[in-house]
Amino acid sequence: MYHHVKKLMYTVRIGEADPRFGAMLLEQFGGANGELAAAMQYSIQGINTDDPMLKDLLMDIGTEELSHLEVIGTLARMHLKPMKTSREDADADPLLAITGGSGVNLFNSRGNAWTADYLKITGQPEVDLRNNIAAEARAKITYERLIDFCDDQGTRDALQFLMTREITHMKAFMLALDSLGLSPLEIGSLQPTPDLVDQYFNDSTDEDGDGSADMAGSLSSKGGFKCIDSPAFHPELMAVDGPN
Amino acid sequence: MYHHVKKLMYTVRIGEADPRFGAMLLEQFGGANGELAAAMQYSIQGINTDDPMLKDLLMDIGTEELSHLEVIGTLARMHLKPMKTSREDADADPLLAITGGSGVNLFNSRGNAWTADYLKITGQPEVDLRNNIAAEARAKITYERLIDFCDDQGTRDALQFLMTREITHMKAFMLALDSLGLSPLEIGSLQPTPDLVDQYFNDSTDEDGDGSADMAGSLSSKGGFKCIDSPAFHPELMAVDGPN
Amino acid sequence: MYHHVKKLMYTVRIGEADPRFGAMLLEQFGGANGELAAAMQYSIQGINTDDPMLKDLLMDIGTEELSHLEVIGTLARMHLKPMKTSREDADADPLLAITGGSGVNLFNSRGNAWTADYLKITGQPEVDLRNNIAAEARAKITYERLIDFCDDQGTRDALQFLMTREITHMKAFMLALDSLGLSPLEIGSLQPTPDLVDQYFNDSTDEDGDGSADMAGSLSSKGGFKCIDSPAFHPELMAVDGPN
Amino acid sequence: MYHHVKKLMYTVRIGEADPRFGAMLLEQFGGANGELAAAMQYSIQGINTDDPMLKDLLMDIGTEELSHLEVIGTLARMHLKPMKTSREDADADPLLAITGGSGVNLFNSRGNAWTADYLKITGQPEVDLRNNIAAEARAKITYERLIDFCDDQGTRDALQFLMTREITHMKAFMLALDSLGLSPLEIGSLQPTPDLVDQYFNDSTDEDGDGSADMAGSLSSKGGFKCIDSPAFHPELMAVDGPN
Amino acid sequence: MYHHVKKLMYTVRIGEADPRFGAMLLEQFGGANGELAAAMQYSIQGINTDDPMLKDLLMDIGTEELSHLEVIGTLARMHLKPMKTSREDADADPLLAITGGSGVNLFNSRGNAWTADYLKITGQPEVDLRNNIAAEARAKITYERLIDFCDDQGTRDALQFLMTREITHMKAFMLALDSLGLSPLEIGSLQPTPDLVDQYFNDSTDEDGDGSADMAGSLSSKGGFKCIDSPAFHPELMAVDGPN
Amino acid sequence: MYHHVKKLMYTVRIGEADPRFGAMLLEQFGGANGELAAAMQYSIQGINTDDPMLKDLLMDIGTEELSHLEVIGTLARMHLKPMKTSREDADADPLLAITGGSGVNLFNSRGNAWTADYLKITGQPEVDLRNNIAAEARAKITYERLIDFCDDQGTRDALQFLMTREITHMKAFMLALDSLGLSPLEIGSLQPTPDLVDQYFNDSTDEDGDGSADMAGSLSSKGGFKCIDSPAFHPELMAVDGPN
Repeated sequence: MYHHVKKLMYTVRIGEADPRFGAMLLEQFGGANGELAAAMQYSIQGINTDDPMLKDLLMDIGTEELSHLEVIGTLARMHLKPMKTSREDADADPLLAITGGSGVNLFNSRGNAWTADYLKITGQPEVDLRNNIAAEARAKITYERLIDFCDDQGTRDALQFLMTREITHMKAFMLALDSLGLSPLEIGSLQPTPDLVDQYFNDSTDEDGDGSADMAGSLSSKGGFKCIDSPAFHPELMAVDGPN
Repeated sequence: MYHHVKKLMYTVRIGEADPRFGAMLLEQFGGANGELAAAMQYSIQGINTDDPMLKDLLMDIGTEELSHLEVIGTLARMHLKPMKTSREDADADPLLAITGGSGVNLFNSRGNAWTADYLKITGQPEVDLRNNIAAEARAKITYERLIDFCDDQGTRDALQFLMTREITHMKAFMLALDSLGLSPLEIGSLQPTPDLVDQYFNDSTDEDGDGSADMAGSLSSKGGFKCIDSPAFHPELMAVDGPN
Repeated sequence: MYHHVKKLMYTVRIGEADPRFGAMLLEQFGGANGELAAAMQYSIQGINTDDPMLKDLLMDIGTEELSHLEVIGTLARMHLKPMKTSREDADADPLLAITGGSGVNLFNSRGNAWTADYLKITGQPEVDLRNNIAAEARAKITYERLIDFCDDQGTRDALQFLMTREITHMKAFMLALDSLGLSPLEIGSLQPTPDLVDQYFNDSTDEDGDGSADMAGSLSSKGGFKCIDSPAFHPELMAVDGPN
Repeated sequence: MYHHVKKLMYTVRIGEADPRFGAMLLEQFGGANGELAAAMQYSIQGINTDDPMLKDLLMDIGTEELSHLEVIGTLARMHLKPMKTSREDADADPLLAITGGSGVNLFNSRGNAWTADYLKITGQPEVDLRNNIAAEARAKITYERLIDFCDDQGTRDALQFLMTREITHMKAFMLALDSLGLSPLEIGSLQPTPDLVDQYFNDSTDEDGDGSADMAGSLSSKGGFKCIDSPAFHPELMAVDGPN
Repeated sequence: MYHHVKKLMYTVRIGEADPRFGAMLLEQFGGANGELAAAMQYSIQGINTDDPMLKDLLMDIGTEELSHLEVIGTLARMHLKPMKTSREDADADPLLAITGGSGVNLFNSRGNAWTADYLKITGQPEVDLRNNIAAEARAKITYERLIDFCDDQGTRDALQFLMTREITHMKAFMLALDSLGLSPLEIGSLQPTPDLVDQYFNDSTDEDGDGSADMAGSLSSKGGFKCIDSPAFHPELMAVDGPN
Repeated sequence: MYHHVKKLMYTVRIGEADPRFGAMLLEQFGGANGELAAAMQYSIQGINTDDPMLKDLLMDIGTEELSHLEVIGTLARMHLKPMKTSREDADADPLLAITGGSGVNLFNSRGNAWTADYLKITGQPEVDLRNNIAAEARAKITYERLIDFCDDQGTRDALQFLMTREITHMKAFMLALDSLGLSPLEIGSLQPTPDLVDQYFNDSTDEDGDGSADMAGSLSSKGGFKCIDSPAFHPELMAVDGPN
């Protein structure tokens, strides 16, 4: 069950409203890496899991992301408000200006409707936690870029708050992944095929076969890979048993 | 700010799991008229409005819908669980079975990802409240149809709880609309054109011009409309000033 | 069966073309609340219903909306035309300029393709008529905002014509809803649970529990609701029989 | 302006309703190659063109497709009706059964919402007519496959009517393309680069370079192409002036 | 199997970067008529066909389109690069600037995500080849319009290269269609209904029935059509046997 | 530049075709975690990066995924083939049966069109590599589940081959991430706010405040977090400077 308290997690104060920056902010409201995506990804993983500790972690962070959604939505609305009366400002986001009365909605910076296709939910803890670590990394860099494009101090402070929390969450998900006690490449229960798993296919080569800037060599030495050059032309070198 | 309590608003108990019914239930989880759509429509209207009473109403009900989302998600997950191990059951929703480990996700009964295109948010109170009344009416009939297709008593009880709450919300939104003190056709501030607004265009007629089952007559007597028959062929009868 | 007459329902004449306003106009051509959405919502409801009077009403208005689609499309095309030769104008809608030769297409003001996800069709008359009343209210406010952002008199006249017709339709749908003879909260045939239906859940509260700007009190007095404060923390107060 | 006559272009009569076939029929109602796609593609091209003869052709056929939409919608609705009361039938299309009351909506056979992304509209007559010829060819084969999967004679008759009309339209569009008086490869006004335009890049080869089943030879003799084998490895053979 | 060579099919060199033109270029990267659409349409048709010559043609051209995708992506990235550090430039495509670090992604000029709904794949050779001819015609006109909006010579040269190749492909697909040996209206195996197939329905008429600018007459003389005027009002003239 | 060799990376041989399993296989062809998503995510990151070693890695693996796309497409097509003639089989995927002639297309197991919204591309190496590690983990578990639902040995062998390669790629991306030499929480260049970054918000609690199954304690001890219980009710405990 959810309860809402009529106070923002971070009290937003802005100087001059900037409608085009308001549209940019929508990336974190209704965009692919935004707060609704985070809230839904974690909360639904939480509904699906039977592990009480993992469920608690997912509901803790999923709920915090709902509070972030409220903060970023309020912040974006402040920046979008001049669209209500100014035609020139309305050109910043005509979709919100004309159909939304200049309020926020679950669109991204280019007016695309939020879609659950953004979510990565697999029901496998060691996969979902990696999905979440990657999601937090995306959210962090997104906030960083917004801060870089913003001069207003009040807005920057709010974004700094939200950006910081993504690192907090990233660390928590990493700890949870560690606590599963799996080896780095252990996903699910089926084993990969030996030999084949250690072959690196060098599928992109120089025109003249020159190995400059070629990753294959580096991976062979560091990762114990065996490099197969241009397997499309040398399929017999691939470690495939049987029908190939 | 949001807080989550680790207890469902309605404790769901089911008899035998029915994966195909579980897929149907997803209409109220990730579907067009479902709980996320309701939660988001009201909460975002709440973020956008400056009227404290309306904001409170929208956040009250938006928050309750988040609790409903948790209930219906938990219920659907129970019904979908057999897909995890049974290939035949997995055919009920291969998308969730294969990519989701048989847990729920924000898809509808046919596997379409939830989209913010479902939402109706205009920033105009007398419009948004009508959007919300219509949304609650849709949610009510959706729950009714799910109940009609379900034999399991525990599932029916949970759906009856959720269905009842939609009527509660519908009533609250109707009261809020009344409290605005507007006349029934008063939307925004621009006035419609007199005379033209009272013309009913009879654009669909019998092949032979016979008026059987024709709405025009009924509306003329009840609503004070003036009926214009087949305006495509009689444009001069339309109350258009000037350029037409 | 449909027939088309080579004359617009409203003859559009514009002064100076304004490509960015042309893009805004697309909200009513290929947008969520636009004329295609209206035409399809009503016409498909008309195909689905067995009630001859309701079917006639839906086909009358659905057909009129097709004529509106033609008007708004012609109007938008006039405003978009300079994109054909001017690179600067083309930036107003590069999608139409580059792929469409500067003609209209079923996109909204931000270039999103029209989707049937915009439609609200349930096959239940008392629900569909509410969907239609809300749709007309949205269309009215959308036209009003377009008029507010437009200086060109010819364009404003055309939009005023179209805006007026939405009020006409809204009134017709309200009369049709009244003619069903149902009580205001009667949707479908299953009854809501007594007591529970009259409880208002106060899910959004002040931080300190202060009731300022709290809808609960107002609804208790006006609507006969019984208010349950913070049910997430007091689930025992909810009128749930049995399993909760 | 449009007018609707309350009579179907083809009176549909079916034997036993088949809900799963009803879902298949939706491909021609709300599917990618269906009647709405045809109606919109042609009608919008008609709005965009300034050529009166081409506009008339596009509005003639666009309007006929609206009448087809009504026929196929009515036919599909007949087949879907048992979903209203039978849970087993409802599994054929739970989206329509639960949210639509078993009526039709603009979804395809798998429940995907119709999208304007299906349309091909370029504003260039020699391109749009090719788009339309291809669209009619797709519609024809779609109807043929539906007929092949259907035993009900009344349904087959209706589909045969609709399928026949696609050939009629295909022929009309081919005549219109011929009437433009352009050469077969003349698209727009910019000329392709000589020499380069006559090179055929043989980008898919046998593992051992054997030319069996290789299109290159055939095209060289028939089309006057000069074949360049494996240009990725022989970029110097491509007829690129300057920077390559 | 695919192999990649680290060299572009056309070496792109640009003068001054133009971020708004970079966004326009995305139409050919992640847009409806762009290179990914072409690559996927042909390659998947190639996977589906059992005809070795047709498969080779489709894989040849499908593979070339992948090389084009790399060229246009590299070109667009060059033009978009200033968005990385300039807020004003970032407004050209905030989605790429904020979430993509100013690199390209599979979006079109208005930020819509690429969708397989763009593809036309039917598994019927005489239909798919027409789909491909139309696709190449669209791609050609799209490149032409991009060239028309571009002053940078290096960019124009690259676009001229890509535009030329579309004509090459169009010719190859036309030859392949001819080689099937079918008559112009032969699609699939079911025959259209005689008489009905030769009737042209004049569904769009002048208000007063005047035939000016009416396609019907022209088609009767050129195409052997029999014209039926206003069939909605004269259904008895349609060549429908039986139930109508 | 790309070159295609007319040989599959893994020669697929199947026993009895299983159309419903064929539809499941489409998850790895046109689904969210499938081979096209992988091919595009890596190849486009490769186009965007200026680091030659990273670009080589991304193009190597991106190209291999194109070869996988061809394998899984061919495999799915074999399983879907009976839909061509059997109506009962066609019910497994009516979209492909009716519109696609029973060949594959870029849809997932439920017929949803592939969308670039599936991709995670940020232009920041330490983020994109995490996106790729997560993507490979998802692909691995998806193949594992397909294998679990499949009895046909030839199909299982092909899926085992493809599954193995995902682990290979996952390892390569992990090595590349390590080679960047960043600390585990180092994303971009802006620093998170001290103190605040170390607070864990316990936003989901037991009804009675009991800490059973509460992640907060565990994270405090393992990760050095300071736990803030129920911050919605104790905002003063959050380490927010200034305006909160």
